[in-house]
Amino acid sequence: MSNIHPTAIIMPGAVIGENVKIGVYSIIGDMARIGDNTEIGNFCEIGLESGISSQAPVYISENSLIRSGSIIYQGSFFGKGLKTGHRVTVRENTKAGCNLQIGTLSDIQGHCTIGDFVRLHSNVHVGQKTKLGNFAWVFPYVVLTNDPHPPSELLEGSTIGNFAIIATMCTVLPGVCIGQDALVGAMTLVKGDVPEDVICVGQPGKNIGCTEKIRFKDTGKPVYPWRRQFHRGYPDHIVNAWRDEFPNG
Amino acid sequence: MSNIHPTAIIMPGAVIGENVKIGVYSIIGDMARIGDNTEIGNFCEIGLESGISSQAPVYISENSLIRSGSIIYQGSFFGKGLKTGHRVTVRENTKAGCNLQIGTLSDIQGHCTIGDFVRLHSNVHVGQKTKLGNFAWVFPYVVLTNDPHPPSELLEGSTIGNFAIIATMCTVLPGVCIGQDALVGAMTLVKGDVPEDVICVGQPGKNIGCTEKIRFKDTGKPVYPWRRQFHRGYPDHIVNAWRDEFPNG
Amino acid sequence: MSNIHPTAIIMPGAVIGENVKIGVYSIIGDMARIGDNTEIGNFCEIGLESGISSQAPVYISENSLIRSGSIIYQGSFFGKGLKTGHRVTVRENTKAGCNLQIGTLSDIQGHCTIGDFVRLHSNVHVGQKTKLGNFAWVFPYVVLTNDPHPPSELLEGSTIGNFAIIATMCTVLPGVCIGQDALVGAMTLVKGDVPEDVICVGQPGKNIGCTEKIRFKDTGKPVYPWRRQFHRGYPDHIVNAWRDEFPNG
Repeated sequence: MSNIHPTAIIMPGAVIGENVKIGVYSIIGDMARIGDNTEIGNFCEIGLESGISSQAPVYISENSLIRSGSIIYQGSFFGKGLKTGHRVTVRENTKAGCNLQIGTLSDIQGHCTIGDFVRLHSNVHVGQKTKLGNFAWVFPYVVLTNDPHPPSELLEGSTIGNFAIIATMCTVLPGVCIGQDALVGAMTLVKGDVPEDVICVGQPGKNIGCTEKIRFKDTGKPVYPWRRQFHRGYPDHIVNAWRDEFPNG
Repeated sequence: MSNIHPTAIIMPGAVIGENVKIGVYSIIGDMARIGDNTEIGNFCEIGLESGISSQAPVYISENSLIRSGSIIYQGSFFGKGLKTGHRVTVRENTKAGCNLQIGTLSDIQGHCTIGDFVRLHSNVHVGQKTKLGNFAWVFPYVVLTNDPHPPSELLEGSTIGNFAIIATMCTVLPGVCIGQDALVGAMTLVKGDVPEDVICVGQPGKNIGCTEKIRFKDTGKPVYPWRRQFHRGYPDHIVNAWRDEFPNG
Repeated sequence: MSNIHPTAIIMPGAVIGENVKIGVYSIIGDMARIGDNTEIGNFCEIGLESGISSQAPVYISENSLIRSGSIIYQGSFFGKGLKTGHRVTVRENTKAGCNLQIGTLSDIQGHCTIGDFVRLHSNVHVGQKTKLGNFAWVFPYVVLTNDPHPPSELLEGSTIGNFAIIATMCTVLPGVCIGQDALVGAMTLVKGDVPEDVICVGQPGKNIGCTEKIRFKDTGKPVYPWRRQFHRGYPDHIVNAWRDEFPNG
């Protein structure tokens, strides 16, 4: 039993699970595979043909929420619990783990590999061939580029480590590796690799030391690795493991 | 008498004033309160449920113009004369005065307080808890952030003073206060407060003196406070008061 | 014979060529002039009234592809082979040559002159009065501004030369001229003119020498002018001329 608005257009090849809700004026293509308990908002296009690749299914796994105006092409896979903002665009050949969040207006250009529990905030641009590790955070207006000599035929995505954070309005240059638990400050131009646990800031970005020196003003406790102190939206078994890892917060 | 396109979907709880125009394929939710003489373009969603807060009305006051593809959640209030570009997003619990303009693709994340006659140009991102004073200007690709240690549970919006100007592609860090009539130059990373009438530029932003030194090349007259010389789109009684305040322009 | 979806709304004054495809829930206004063999995706608005200018046709020439969610106002002309991404916005009085590409979410504010084969990537903001030369490239999150003293009544667009490249997330200040074959590096604030063949980087941008010093790591061959080595998507007669111009690549 699903709840599909009469104005939604469902192509005959689409496969739609149990308890799915599809909003007003949305278009679900032949190659769409929608998991159980998923909600698709208004004005969405799921399973859009790319015109480049041959036809391939796009899997939106169970318990997902696609907000209105979003476009997801054919030929990608999203693990369960995908949540998007409004008007996101995801092109073909994107492989994402579970519980990905993609903010309003963000654009994933395809051919990307994305881990579990990744958080892309609003208006993030993810170039082709980007690799995002588990629990990585990318804040608004960040661009992850991939062409070292624009325009050229080279294509070198960046690699963002597990738990790494890229703050607002950074540009990450092609092929850069940002290490696990690293922190890139707002408005940084990241030209070279950032080691694990290191802070990178400036234009061009410089590695200025370890994240452990950043403390909360009121308590003096360390902020990073952020899983010490930020648990909102993660499941209990994960939060419990983090509490064991950092018993003093 | 209103002019509602037959493809628009008006939920039964919506309250719609006199002489309202609603475009093609727009969706007006139960909690929408649309004032007289307002025009809502095509593909809009007004009164979207947030899924977080409880149901609350959203007031679009009289003489407003919402351009196509815009999304406005429940639980906000906009004074009369709101004008939006295309595909703006405004989340719940936003309180705005009269004559707000929000440019194409701009995103107000909710829980914001906005004065009268504020101008947000295209693609401005306003984080939760931001306060914008009367007559403030924010230019394209500016991000007003709010989390001092991303990701954390802290939430410190910035405060933008009356008549202040933030030029293109700035990032304003959490909790910053930008004074009345201050000017932030293009591509500035604003880390600290900017006093009244002061210019802030660079990365990180530095306060480099008073706005009064900026002059028009041709006439030698001062540019700022901008209400000396820029009057387009403001009502006569306001412009007349500005002319009295600056009789020599 | 055209292929117009039954949910598309075609106003009676629209002129639609042969073999045109118009997608689901799109709106084609009275002033739209759609050339042969053109495809218009879903949720588009073509020929939107500006509310400012008087009614004037918008010409989408033959062999064009407008992807879903795009908005094109009245009163512009596009040469053949226009391709857009999703949700682009183009306002009135834009004149573009052939084979223009406009990436997803890009916004052309109107009153612009655009040459042939120009490439605007995603999320590019082109201010009014901008002039873009033939074969110019503009990468994501670039803003081409036009008001030297915001807000003022002055309006000075920038001029981007033939084959010039503006990399990701630059701001180009009003009235700036960027020369033919010049290269602006990522995240540059371009305050002054950039001569032909010159590299400009930094904040504020500095001209740091000639593009000829940039070489591919593996071959040692020069990267720029880029038409030496990048030919994807250009017609044979143009590529052949470039091969004659640079016989050694």
